[in-house]
Amino acid sequence: MSTSAQIGVTGLAVMGRNLARNFARNGYTVAVHNRTVARTNALMEEFGHEGEFVATETAKEFVAALERPRRLMIMVKAGEPTDTVIQEFAPLLEPGDMIIDGGNAHFADTRRRERALREQGIHFVGTGVSGGEEGALHGPSIMPGGSKESYESLGPMLEKISAKANDGAPCVTHVGPDGAGHFVKMVHNGIEYADMQLIGEAYQLLRDVAGYSPAQIADIFRTWNTGRLDSYLIEITAEVLSHVDAATGKPFVDIVEDRAEQKGTGRWTVQIALDLGVPVSGIAEAVFARSLSGHADLRAASRGLAGPKATQLGEAAAFADRVEQALYASKIVSYTQGFHEITAGSTEYDWNIDLGAVASIWRGGCIIRAAFLDRIRAAYDARPDLPSLLSDETFAQEIAAAQDDWREVLVAATRQGVPTPGFSAALAYYDALRAERLPAALTQGQRDFFGAHTYRRTDREGSFHTLWGGDRSEVEA
Amino acid sequence: MSTSAQIGVTGLAVMGRNLARNFARNGYTVAVHNRTVARTNALMEEFGHEGEFVATETAKEFVAALERPRRLMIMVKAGEPTDTVIQEFAPLLEPGDMIIDGGNAHFADTRRRERALREQGIHFVGTGVSGGEEGALHGPSIMPGGSKESYESLGPMLEKISAKANDGAPCVTHVGPDGAGHFVKMVHNGIEYADMQLIGEAYQLLRDVAGYSPAQIADIFRTWNTGRLDSYLIEITAEVLSHVDAATGKPFVDIVEDRAEQKGTGRWTVQIALDLGVPVSGIAEAVFARSLSGHADLRAASRGLAGPKATQLGEAAAFADRVEQALYASKIVSYTQGFHEITAGSTEYDWNIDLGAVASIWRGGCIIRAAFLDRIRAAYDARPDLPSLLSDETFAQEIAAAQDDWREVLVAATRQGVPTPGFSAALAYYDALRAERLPAALTQGQRDFFGAHTYRRTDREGSFHTLWGGDRSEVEA
Repeated sequence: MSTSAQIGVTGLAVMGRNLARNFARNGYTVAVHNRTVARTNALMEEFGHEGEFVATETAKEFVAALERPRRLMIMVKAGEPTDTVIQEFAPLLEPGDMIIDGGNAHFADTRRRERALREQGIHFVGTGVSGGEEGALHGPSIMPGGSKESYESLGPMLEKISAKANDGAPCVTHVGPDGAGHFVKMVHNGIEYADMQLIGEAYQLLRDVAGYSPAQIADIFRTWNTGRLDSYLIEITAEVLSHVDAATGKPFVDIVEDRAEQKGTGRWTVQIALDLGVPVSGIAEAVFARSLSGHADLRAASRGLAGPKATQLGEAAAFADRVEQALYASKIVSYTQGFHEITAGSTEYDWNIDLGAVASIWRGGCIIRAAFLDRIRAAYDARPDLPSLLSDETFAQEIAAAQDDWREVLVAATRQGVPTPGFSAALAYYDALRAERLPAALTQGQRDFFGAHTYRRTDREGSFHTLWGGDRSEVEA
Repeated sequence: MSTSAQIGVTGLAVMGRNLARNFARNGYTVAVHNRTVARTNALMEEFGHEGEFVATETAKEFVAALERPRRLMIMVKAGEPTDTVIQEFAPLLEPGDMIIDGGNAHFADTRRRERALREQGIHFVGTGVSGGEEGALHGPSIMPGGSKESYESLGPMLEKISAKANDGAPCVTHVGPDGAGHFVKMVHNGIEYADMQLIGEAYQLLRDVAGYSPAQIADIFRTWNTGRLDSYLIEITAEVLSHVDAATGKPFVDIVEDRAEQKGTGRWTVQIALDLGVPVSGIAEAVFARSLSGHADLRAASRGLAGPKATQLGEAAAFADRVEQALYASKIVSYTQGFHEITAGSTEYDWNIDLGAVASIWRGGCIIRAAFLDRIRAAYDARPDLPSLLSDETFAQEIAAAQDDWREVLVAATRQGVPTPGFSAALAYYDALRAERLPAALTQGQRDFFGAHTYRRTDREGSFHTLWGGDRSEVEA
């Protein structure tokens, strides 16, 4: 038995298997292990020729196969299975060893695990991995948290197996301590939800308002993909929309049940944003849109509700151009909200996250990879303390140029009864942020009226209460 | 020392004190207790003449003063203070005794406490209390959870001290087991957030688009308050808007800082809805609007962003009528979402909540009390299995009549740059629910493309996957 594996992977379902292969293909010796040996054997049989693998059967064997300090990557289901595996391996490790969790863990769990293992001198590296099976094999975007020391040891290997951006930069960076990596991965997924919802709304408008067929809309997305919207999701949208169902000869999108599913990360992004006091309305609408689509009973009971029928406009091509503006402007807002959440998380947990680096490592490998991220990186590189993406001059100018069309698309959607929760939430956020005054003043007045919650004045310091039930004079609170 | 107090209240801050007085004024003998005796003494001095109080100093004295089975109400801060008080008193109690928690606890904490105390034979009654200090004294809306036996003993007393609806019915019901009461109170607060946000948006539109002054808007709200929008919040909105700041002579609403604060229940309502898979976009937008208003830095950095200036319409009065339609339609949607969440919670936790009874007990005492709730009660009484409020014929007809105006208000807001996140989210929800097809089909196609997440077909059973990277044939998954 060799004891020279530079990395070990336990949990050989598709993601773990493909990551193990990726390491091996890049010249590393990889110890592999799985709870049931059959999977290990299958990997060796099918892919053993791709590089140096050390197949192991028991936990002890697996740990013994690793060079020191050990790098042990666990690729099992998030939640209890992760804790079970940690409990199995931690006693076999020594101070200085690393456990890398490449699953979709909640960052709060990662913080808890990191704290517990740190007491044993073990580095726990909660690591976001994005890009699906293909990414895992050919180069994912990787978001490791954990200690600096662990990144020094592990970073070069991750850089090797990661995706590379257009400029050749590896799509991996040391995001920050403890849970920072999984937090950023969570927000990545939240942004992905928003991106997909906005694309869905654009599709619906092009279909119902402009009157285009799915194949025509695919062509429009292909054109968009050569411009500022250039991204993986726009690209695959065109693929999905141009696909024809073999069984029926109908557009594929028409035979798919319109009930979107979800795992947990979009939901978490919104829940944590609520805890942090960050408005992420675009991401929330995307999550809600998925759950709404799944309430078949409610939808069936609501189909008869009154509303206008979408009527197709004369100037379809001009409308499509406007939809591109609306989609782009809404996308800027989604990313503004997502990066705001990362800023807030970084402050709350003292992570010191480099926002430009995050944008940079999302440029390749992951689902939201897009040319757009180059520009976000540039914005943060130019001004790391940017209060928000909307404060960047280029984005502000682009949104200024887009906003008339954005508004008119929403006017059409509103009048024609096409639901655009994402576009609408994005515009409301934009208009609220730029508003001189918000009705929040009235809200504070109401709260003071019914609950003596006090308010602040615009013209002097302090907290005040009006004696609403008495002579309505004002007292300092 | 008397041992005949029918109820004891520990925690004599304003809510606890006023509830104790309310019991005493209704003829009950009330034992009172506070961690620091000064508060107990103050209550006795100021209000001791209002009824039969038994002032106690120690926990033992307090418990000894209560008739059996004991009814011990705790009115302390939610969270740890509640656990501390429970740990102090539980060992002094006997099987059959009741602990009533009238604080704003998270229903999950209430479930945990109920379970623990049940093992000791003690009934834990997590109870929502709405109506603020005034309500606590003169009659709140009360939402008790817990066992049926506890309600048999406690219910008549709560019915006596509660608010009474217009038809004389007490605003209290046995909501359901364990955490059901605090859950319903949580959703009540979420709906309250949405109500307040919608009123704020209506105000802003009347101000910026119709060009009315706060005093004129107060009059408009007063008129609305005589119609179907008749409610406490509309009433106090008129009061707040007509109030003039004595120091400056300006409208009060103009000197209040437009930064809305919040405690936790609105946020919880959204977080739990996300766990339950219930779209509560209107409530979420209300919570986000408050947090957005508080991000002073972000708002300052965004004031220069491009947008139209609101221009005042010629036909202000006609526009105001349209805003009333938009507000009413959006309100129906908020309540639809809130009641959906209660339905989902009731199913998840097996609470068997009577939705008509919930609407009924919100008709008086609480912040969202409104004539409207009579109609919700009628809708659920007529059809307890109503899939959603929007399925009620009367509401569907009203919204059908309102929707043209609702859309035109949003068109004006969109074109004029007035943020209406709540109105917009409500319309998007309405239009999504009634849509024949949603872009969720595209979302599923994308998910299958990048993650092999599979999809369902409209024309046959099963889960399917398209080999996107291969010949794009379809396989059963």
